[in-house]
Amino acid sequence: MLDSEVRQSLLQWLGQERFRDDQETLVTHSYDATPMLQSLPDAVVYPETTAEVQSILRLANEHRIPIVPRGAASNLCGGTVPVQGGIVVAMSRMNKLLELDTVNLTATVQPGLNTKKFHQEVERRGLFYPPDPSSMVISTLGGNIMEGAGGLRGLKYGTTKDYVIGLEAVLPSGEMIRTGGKLYKDVAGYDLTKLLVGSEGTLALITEATLKLLPAPGVRQTMLVAFADIYGAARSVSRIVGARIIPATLEIMDQATIRVVEDYNHIGLPTDVQAILLIEQDGQELEHVKKDMNDIKNICAAEGATDIRMAQDEVEAEQLMMARRSALSTLARISPTTILEDATVPRSAIADMILAINRIAEKYRVNICTFGHAGDGNLHPTCTTDARNEEEIHRVEEAFAEIFEEAISLGGTITGEHGVGTVKAPYLEWKVGNAGIDVMKGIKQVFDPAGIMNPGKIFAKSSRKRLVISK
Amino acid sequence: MLDSEVRQSLLQWLGQERFRDDQETLVTHSYDATPMLQSLPDAVVYPETTAEVQSILRLANEHRIPIVPRGAASNLCGGTVPVQGGIVVAMSRMNKLLELDTVNLTATVQPGLNTKKFHQEVERRGLFYPPDPSSMVISTLGGNIMEGAGGLRGLKYGTTKDYVIGLEAVLPSGEMIRTGGKLYKDVAGYDLTKLLVGSEGTLALITEATLKLLPAPGVRQTMLVAFADIYGAARSVSRIVGARIIPATLEIMDQATIRVVEDYNHIGLPTDVQAILLIEQDGQELEHVKKDMNDIKNICAAEGATDIRMAQDEVEAEQLMMARRSALSTLARISPTTILEDATVPRSAIADMILAINRIAEKYRVNICTFGHAGDGNLHPTCTTDARNEEEIHRVEEAFAEIFEEAISLGGTITGEHGVGTVKAPYLEWKVGNAGIDVMKGIKQVFDPAGIMNPGKIFAKSSRKRLVISK
Repeated sequence: MLDSEVRQSLLQWLGQERFRDDQETLVTHSYDATPMLQSLPDAVVYPETTAEVQSILRLANEHRIPIVPRGAASNLCGGTVPVQGGIVVAMSRMNKLLELDTVNLTATVQPGLNTKKFHQEVERRGLFYPPDPSSMVISTLGGNIMEGAGGLRGLKYGTTKDYVIGLEAVLPSGEMIRTGGKLYKDVAGYDLTKLLVGSEGTLALITEATLKLLPAPGVRQTMLVAFADIYGAARSVSRIVGARIIPATLEIMDQATIRVVEDYNHIGLPTDVQAILLIEQDGQELEHVKKDMNDIKNICAAEGATDIRMAQDEVEAEQLMMARRSALSTLARISPTTILEDATVPRSAIADMILAINRIAEKYRVNICTFGHAGDGNLHPTCTTDARNEEEIHRVEEAFAEIFEEAISLGGTITGEHGVGTVKAPYLEWKVGNAGIDVMKGIKQVFDPAGIMNPGKIFAKSSRKRLVISK
Repeated sequence: MLDSEVRQSLLQWLGQERFRDDQETLVTHSYDATPMLQSLPDAVVYPETTAEVQSILRLANEHRIPIVPRGAASNLCGGTVPVQGGIVVAMSRMNKLLELDTVNLTATVQPGLNTKKFHQEVERRGLFYPPDPSSMVISTLGGNIMEGAGGLRGLKYGTTKDYVIGLEAVLPSGEMIRTGGKLYKDVAGYDLTKLLVGSEGTLALITEATLKLLPAPGVRQTMLVAFADIYGAARSVSRIVGARIIPATLEIMDQATIRVVEDYNHIGLPTDVQAILLIEQDGQELEHVKKDMNDIKNICAAEGATDIRMAQDEVEAEQLMMARRSALSTLARISPTTILEDATVPRSAIADMILAINRIAEKYRVNICTFGHAGDGNLHPTCTTDARNEEEIHRVEEAFAEIFEEAISLGGTITGEHGVGTVKAPYLEWKVGNAGIDVMKGIKQVFDPAGIMNPGKIFAKSSRKRLVISK
C-alpha cells in the first residue's frame, strides 16, 4: 500500500480519474500476456504530460516506490507485471501521433500510440513503418520500444530498434533527457537511444519517440510452400538468401503447428507435411517482385517442395498469412495454458534447432509446436499445457531451459524479440556471461540508483545452473 | 615514461618487434588525421591475440596507465591522439577476415582489417557492406566501429552502427565480453553491441566484430546536377525523398568547394553555380534504377537545375564521384591547415544550414567550403586556414562554435559521423544536456572505473559556454 502522503500527492496532481487504487483497477493491472504470472500493484496512474511523468517518478524515487511503465501489456516475458508492487504508469493517455514529417521521413509519437493505428496513418501517406510484432493490433509503440519488438519483417527490414532515432525519456530522478533526433547520423557521445530501446522499462520512462520511416513498397506477393522433409524447408531458406534474395517475410510452421491450425481453421493446409514456409516479397516494381518469387519457387521445388501455392490476389494472400498469424491464438485454444518462447539461432541452424526442440519435447513428454521467423532464425517453440498441473509445468520448464541452452550452443540467444522480463532473467547469464551481467547491472545502477524502475526484470536473484545435455 | 617493471613485462610478452618506445615510433603515433593536435605516447604495442590484449589491459589497469586503441588513425576528432600519454595499442596485426558466412550473410573480422580491402573481399562474393567512410582506403573496420563511421550511403543504407551485430571486447579489467552474434534479432539484456559502436575507445577494446552483409545491388547509375540557386538544390533533395525515392548517394557541394575542386582537377565542373548535387541510385533491376534516375532528373529540372549530366558508363560515373571524393584532399592542398567538421541537421534544414555557415564564415572572416551528404543532412563545413596564424585560428574556432550552435538550433547535432574525440568534447553538453552527460559519464565509470581507456576523449574538463548568436 502506498504511503498516505504519496497517495495524497498523486491524487491531488492527477485527480480521481487518473489515480486509481480500487481493487478492480489493481487486478486488471496485475498481469500481462505472460501466462502464470500475477502480482498486484499498489496504484495505477495515467499521466498526460511529460511534466506529470517527471513528478510521478521524482516522488516515487524519493519514497523508493517501484515504477512499472505499461503500454498494452501484450508482452510475453512478464515485462509489465508489478512483481514488487508499486505504481503502474499506464501510458494510454499519452497516445498521440505528434508529427508525420514527410520531408525528413520521420514520425514523432507518444508512447501510448497503438502500433496498428500508427501503421495505418503512415501507410495513408504512402510511407512504411516496417516493425510488425504479431501483437500489433493491441500493442503500443512505447511497449514495442521498451521490449525491442521484432515481427515478421525482421530479415529484410530489421526490428523496432532500427527505426528509433530519437527519444525523450524521464530518468527516475525526474530529470528529462533527449537523445538523437530527426537525424540519420549522430555520433555525439554514447548511443543512449539504442541503449534505451529494449531496456524493458528498467532505466527510464519513454515519453516521446522519433521514428524513421521508409517509402512504402508498391507491390507485394505471397506464397505458401509445403515440405515433406523439414530439412528441405530449412535448406530452401538458406538457399533463398544464398541466392541473394531477401524476402520481406520468410516464416516457418512445423507439422504440429500446421495440424492444430488446420484442425481449427480449415484453410486447406496439407497436414501430412513436416513443414510449411510462408513467403512474401515486396518492392517498388512488379517485375522484380515476380522474378524473386519465381526464383524462390524454383529453389523450393528443387529442394523437394510437395506443394507450392501462389496467392492470386490480396484476399488469398491475406488468407495464407492468416494461417501463420493465427498460430498463437489457435494454439491458445487447445489447452488451458500456452507458453510461447522465442529462442533464436543463426539462420543456418534453424533445421537443427527445430529438430532439437522436437527431441527435447519428447524427452520431457511435453507438447511443443514450433513456428516462427525462419528468415532471421527467430523461432517460437510453443508449449500447450496446463498451469494447474504442477508436475507437467515442471517438465515444461526443464524442457525450455534445455531449449535455451541448445539455442546458445548453436550460436543463438535466449530471446530474439520478446525481452528478458522475469521469465528469462535466470537464463540471461548463459547468453551474456558473468562480465556481461555485471556491466548491465552497472548501467542499471547509473540510470536508476534507487532501483525503482521495473524492479525484478532482466536481472534474476540467482542465475539458473546449466543443465547437462545428454546428446 | 613507463614504469620499468611494466616496460619489462610488455617487452617480455611481446618481444622487441611488438613493443616499441623508440623516438620514431612514439612520434609517428603522436597524431592522427586531426589538424593541430599532437601528444607523445610512452609506448606502442602490437598485439596479435585477444589474450595479449587482455594481458596488456589488465597490466595497464593495475598501474593506471592510459590505453589508446588505434586503427589507421584516419579519424578527424583527435580520437587516437594520446593526449595523456600512455600505451598506444596498434591493432594492425589483428587484421584478418576470419569468416565470410554466405548462408547467414555475415562477416567476422578482426579490428585491424582495412575497410576497402574488406569491401573488395565481400564484393567478390556478390555481397555488399554499405558503410563507405571517405577514408576507407586507409581506415580499418575497428576504427570505423569505434567512431561509428558513416559515409556516402547513409541515407539509404545507414552507417557502421547498423551493420555491427556482434562484438568481442576486452574490458579494462582484462575480462572479455561477447555481445550479440550472427543474429538479426537479439534482445537479451541491454544492447551492449550498439553501445560500444561509437564509444571511441573509451569503454573497451574491440578484438573481433560480426558484421551484417547485404546482397550486392547489380546496377548503379550516377548523375551530376548543377543549380544556380542553392535553395533549388536543397528543395530538390527534399522533393526527391518526398517522392518516395531514396537514392544510394545524394551529395552536395557548394560554390566555394566546386571552384577549388575544378581549379585543381579540371573535370569540367560549372564554377558559376551555387551548388552541385551528385546523385547515385543502385538496385537489382536496371529498369527500376533508370526510372528513379529519370524521376530525379525531372524534379531537379523543375527546381531550376542549370545542367544535368548523366554518366554514360562506369568510367564517367567514377569521374563524377571523384569530384566529390577528392573535395577534402583538394581543399587540403590550397592551404597549410584544413579543418573538416561534420555538423549535421535534419534533411529539411540543409539549405538553411549551408547559408548559415556562409553567413558565419563571413562574420568571422574565415574561408569555409561546404560539401557533404545532403541526403542525410550530414554537412562537412571545411575551413582552409593556417595553424601558425593564432589570431585567425581563434576566429576559426569561434566560427565553428557558432556553426555547432546553429546546427543544434536547427534540430541537428555536433557530429554526424566523425565522433566527439577531443575536438568536440567541449560542445557535447550542447547536444545531450547536463543529464545526458552525467548518464554517459556514469556508463564510462561502469566499464572503466580507473579511467584508463582513451582518457581525455568525449568528456571535456569543462563545457564551452554558448555564444550569443546575433542574427
